[in-house]
Order: sequence, then structure tokens, then C-alpha cells
Amino acid sequence: MTEPLSARLAAYAAVATDLGVEAVALVPGPNFTRAVIHPFMSHERPFLIVIPATGTPAALVPNLELQSWDLVGFEGAVFDWRDQDGYDAAFAALTAHLKIGSLAVEGQIMRVFVHHALKKAQPDLRIVDGEAAISGLRMVKTPEDIAALRAAIEISERALAQTLDGVRLGQTETEIEQALIQALFAHGAEDQAFHPIVAAGDGSARPHAKARPDYAVKAGDALLIDFGARKHGFAADITRTVFLDHASDRAADVYDTVLRANRKGHAITRAGITAHEIDDAVTGVLEASPYGDRIRTKTGHGLGRDVHEAPYIMRGNHQVLPAGCVFTNEPGLYRIGDFGVRIEDDILVTEDGCVSLTTFPTELTVLKC
Amino acid sequence: MTEPLSARLAAYAAVATDLGVEAVALVPGPNFTRAVIHPFMSHERPFLIVIPATGTPAALVPNLELQSWDLVGFEGAVFDWRDQDGYDAAFAALTAHLKIGSLAVEGQIMRVFVHHALKKAQPDLRIVDGEAAISGLRMVKTPEDIAALRAAIEISERALAQTLDGVRLGQTETEIEQALIQALFAHGAEDQAFHPIVAAGDGSARPHAKARPDYAVKAGDALLIDFGARKHGFAADITRTVFLDHASDRAADVYDTVLRANRKGHAITRAGITAHEIDDAVTGVLEASPYGDRIRTKTGHGLGRDVHEAPYIMRGNHQVLPAGCVFTNEPGLYRIGDFGVRIEDDILVTEDGCVSLTTFPTELTVLKC
Repeated sequence: MTEPLSARLAAYAAVATDLGVEAVALVPGPNFTRAVIHPFMSHERPFLIVIPATGTPAALVPNLELQSWDLVGFEGAVFDWRDQDGYDAAFAALTAHLKIGSLAVEGQIMRVFVHHALKKAQPDLRIVDGEAAISGLRMVKTPEDIAALRAAIEISERALAQTLDGVRLGQTETEIEQALIQALFAHGAEDQAFHPIVAAGDGSARPHAKARPDYAVKAGDALLIDFGARKHGFAADITRTVFLDHASDRAADVYDTVLRANRKGHAITRAGITAHEIDDAVTGVLEASPYGDRIRTKTGHGLGRDVHEAPYIMRGNHQVLPAGCVFTNEPGLYRIGDFGVRIEDDILVTEDGCVSLTTFPTELTVLKC
Repeated sequence: MTEPLSARLAAYAAVATDLGVEAVALVPGPNFTRAVIHPFMSHERPFLIVIPATGTPAALVPNLELQSWDLVGFEGAVFDWRDQDGYDAAFAALTAHLKIGSLAVEGQIMRVFVHHALKKAQPDLRIVDGEAAISGLRMVKTPEDIAALRAAIEISERALAQTLDGVRLGQTETEIEQALIQALFAHGAEDQAFHPIVAAGDGSARPHAKARPDYAVKAGDALLIDFGARKHGFAADITRTVFLDHASDRAADVYDTVLRANRKGHAITRAGITAHEIDDAVTGVLEASPYGDRIRTKTGHGLGRDVHEAPYIMRGNHQVLPAGCVFTNEPGLYRIGDFGVRIEDDILVTEDGCVSLTTFPTELTVLKC
């Protein structure tokens, strides 16, 4: 079912060759987990695998992880270090062993202290940001990846249905958020994909709002819920916006505009289209409406082990989308002091179109609560 | 109650002066949240505040965060950027505005892509790792910080009691983990401090084990649970190890050894002691036992907005602990293929001793389940 470790690591060696560098480094995170299967944490301890374009990989491993590391089946040299000794000697031994002049790293994941430790061990090491190419290996999903995403989404949609059933006027945003989180785990989430956004009324106008303990939802409010379960290491990311008790004519019109933009994204997506073309078409629907001044965000982002990953669905990104990639289609309109609407689906690109992995209804919903 | 923003930022200006650099940069994370109070996310978007040693701070803000940023009350220059334009121009404008030659960053938090964007905008900018000094401002807790930690710990202990009450032989580690997570949120957690460790039998021997869906707990197993709630932005971090149905004589002896080490940590802690001295005394108890070959970790780490922060309680760290700092006292003994025991309390250092913020019993517990 799953490729052997050597084959998974060989893919990163090929990335090094493509990038014209002598090796690729992975630190704990989604690429590292994809490579070794077993999840590891890093916290304050440097931990990395270096995969040369040719030759055998090597790893720098905190001593307290060695027993878990044994489960990985790694065949290269391992340089471990203990807290009380510090890690400088391990980095020096690693770089002396590798004898490389250039290294591509995950710029969005590796932190500066690891970068500095590498440069301290080998000042002339050229470190380049290989994020796009390294994480790009996760862009086309395997059947197992898709099954995990579907499982995460199914849990999320059940939790959302249960949460919306329980909403009552006068509850605080925080109370609704807590109900959502409990429902996620009750339905089998192994974790939250990210801390949810539960925002009502004027709070819904902030794309990354935080639930307020002192805001009680009231009739006429928009209620925006952006959340997701994590299952088998993969993240769902779903947004629905509903209205409580009633929706004003203008609210309904704004909602209809966002829904048309969302549907435009579904309609035009197929393998071979560029990220730019999707955002241009989706955002174009919003721009052609009377609400163009309420646009705040791009159309979406890739989704998989990470909640935000390639491809980024935005104008100027002329990356061609292959069959098997998954992205969020999440147009929105936001006006501060008023309200916001976002409708977010998780879309699987296929050769001749796309499949929405999210199936929760998107029609205008007014909760009688 | 809370200092004004200008006073909070002035503390970072003083850090810049102490470090001999011209400015300090903060990116979203615990220091950023402490500074601006409102929590922000970064994901793939660079977002930073630069506080010069003298003069007015400046910020680089993703356009879609501007409306939330307005809540912060920031008075300096703001350079925003939109997804479709990229962020290079904003970094160029920021560095041209600041006119600094050196910058201290949070090495454990800032990622390499932000470091590279700064260097691209200003190749001669000297970037140093100021992690210890910057995050060090969080080491001495305020009364509000302590209250938040106590709230997080109280939720955690209630959840643990409920979870242990529900343990039955034959449950999987994953089932126990799910019960724990649901209990955390039911008792009022705003988030998990980290993904919990629920490990039984031989799994307990791995300090950072992941719950197994295919391991059913059995009579005689050690059950190690390491977890914490997050409340008001602060993290609890607690470990208890119990035995199911019965404990062998050797298990009881190993447990007693770890408990004596944990109690040693409580007994010797007071303001003015060094991190080295605590680890030396606690680990010394383990070393003097017949189980010295089962030592895998240092004694502990600081605890606050971050689960792992200064001070790191390990030999070789001669940092003096001030009154008001909080750290984990978590000695453990682990033998692969056998079992592990860890007992972790959260300790507040006071002028004349210490207070354990965790109050969950530590005596050997055998669950009749």
C-alpha cells in the first residue's frame, strides 16, 4: 500500500537534483511525516533528515527520540544529541559527514534556529528556500490521501450539522465554538485541523475572527463557522455562513453573490487550468457585483496534511493544477461593522472536471432557533 | 490591569539595547500575542512587528488582517501587502523605513521564509537569534498569567479525573485519548495545549508516544497520560502514570523512584537556584537507583503561553530561576519493550520555596477497572 521509506526519500533526492542543490533537508512537519510515516515533534529541539541528490540520507535526532526513531527503519547515519550537551557537535558531525555545499530547506516550516545551527556548523553552506518544490510533492494526492480527506470531511460535516441544530439566540460565540469542538471529537476527529472561527454579526466581517465570550448571537445575525477535523493526518477545512432567525434582503443578496462565485469555481475547475484562472473567474463574479469593495481574500489554498499548502489559488499564480490536487474554494465578502459571508468547499481536481469532497448544503440557510 | 501597548513594546526596545542590536522583530506566536494581546495567525503569510531600540515600531501586515489589526491600537507605520502582489515590496518598504543594520529575531518561532524575505530586502541586515532574551520577557509571570495557568490546570485535572474514572480493560489507547480530549473541552478548555500522549504497556516507554488504535490496555499495564488544557492563552502540562488492575513489585519500585525524584524537585526549588542545580538533584535521585539506564530526558521546561519555553531545567543551564517563573518538574524512567513512568507537575517558583500549581495526587495509583 505505502511505498518503502527508500522510495519516499528518493523523491526528495530528485527534488534536490531539480533545484540544482546537493541535498534537501526535512524538519518535523507535514513533509517529514509523509516521508517517515511516524509523526514526530520538534519543539525546542532540532531534528532533521538530510537527503542528498546522490548517496545515503543522514539524520540529526534528539536522543530522547531515538527509541521512536527506531520504528522508522532509517538506514543512513544518525547523529544524536542530548539536552545537556547541546546540539552544536551533532550539527558539526552531520555537516562533516555530508560534505555538501548547498541545501534546500522548507522555508515555511524550518525555523531560524535550525538555519543558524547549520550555518554555524558550516558557514559556507548555501541554504535556499525549496518550499515550493519540497511541499509540491504533496500536491497530487494518493488514493489513501483522498480517503483520509474524505474521512476528515465526513466527521466535520456531521459535527457542523449537530452544532447548527443546537444554536439558540442568546448563546455566545464561545459557547457555539465549544459545542462545535466537542462535536468534532465525538464524531471521531483525531485533532482539530486548526482553531475554529465562530463569528456572528459584525464579527463575521473579520476573515480570521476569534470567538468572543461576550457576544450573544441575535436574530438577523450572520453566523460564520470555519473549521475542520483532522483524521489520519489529513485536515478538512470547511466554512458555512448561515443566518439566524431571518436574513435581510441585502444579506440574502450578498450571500447569493458569494454562492455564485463559489459555484463558478466548481464549474470551471479541471486538470490543466491555472490557479490564476480559477481566482480570476471566482473573484470576477464578486467584482461584477455591487459588493466589490468587500473582497478581502484570494479564492483558496491547497489542502492535505497541512491546512494551507500549495497550490495557492490566487491571481498571479500561473501554476497548472494537476488531476489529484485538492484545494479550498472559499470566496467571501466582508464589510467591517456590518457582516461577512464565506462559503468554503474542498475540491478534488480530476481530468475532466472536479469533485467537491464537501457535500454540506450551500443554499441560503436561515436557522429558526 | 494590563499595561498599554506602548509599555509592552518598550520592553522589547530594551531587549534590543541589551542585545546590542538596533531592533527586535516579533512574528505571530506567544511573544507577539503577549505584545498585542489579540492573537493572530501567520500560516503562509509573513506578518511581523519590528521594535527599534529607539524610535517608533513598524509592522508588516497581510492585507486581509488589517481590519483585525485595527483593534490592536498600533501607532507606528504599517506596511501591508495583498496575496496577489506578493510581499517583497512590503519588506523593501519596511526596511527602507527602518534604516537599521541589525535585528534580533525569535529563532525558535520565526521561519526561514521570513528570514530570507528580510535578507532579500536588505542583504546587509545582520540577523541574530535573540530567542532567549525575547522570550525571556515571558519567564516571570504576572498575577494574571498565574491565574490563567491555574485555570488551565484546574480544567486539566478535572478532565483527567473523569478520564481515569472511565478507563476499562480492553479499551484502546485511542479510545482513552478521545475520552480525555472530550473531557478537556467539556470542562472548559479553549484548546488543547498540545496533542496528548496516552500510552500504555510498552508504549509508555516512548517519551513522545502516539496513541495506538490497535493496542487494548490490559491488566498490569502502566498507563501514561501527558496532556493539558489551554485557557486564556496559557497552557497546562501534566503527566500522571497509573497502573491498571495491579502493579508488579518492580513497577511499584520504578514508580517510587520517579516519585522520589519528583518530590526532590519540589523540595529544593526556591528563587535563586539554577536550572542546573534542580536537574542535577532530580536526575541524581534517578541515577542513584538501580534504574539509571532508563533515564531519557531532562527534568523539565518553562511553561506559560508556550508549552516549552525558558527556563529549560537541565544540567549545564546555569540560569538562575527568579520568583514568578513556572516550570515542569517531570522526571521519568523508560525502558523500551517494558514500560515507562513519568510524573509531571507545574511548579511556581517563590522567594522562599515553590508552589505546585498541579494538585492531582501523585501516590501510586492502581485502577480497578
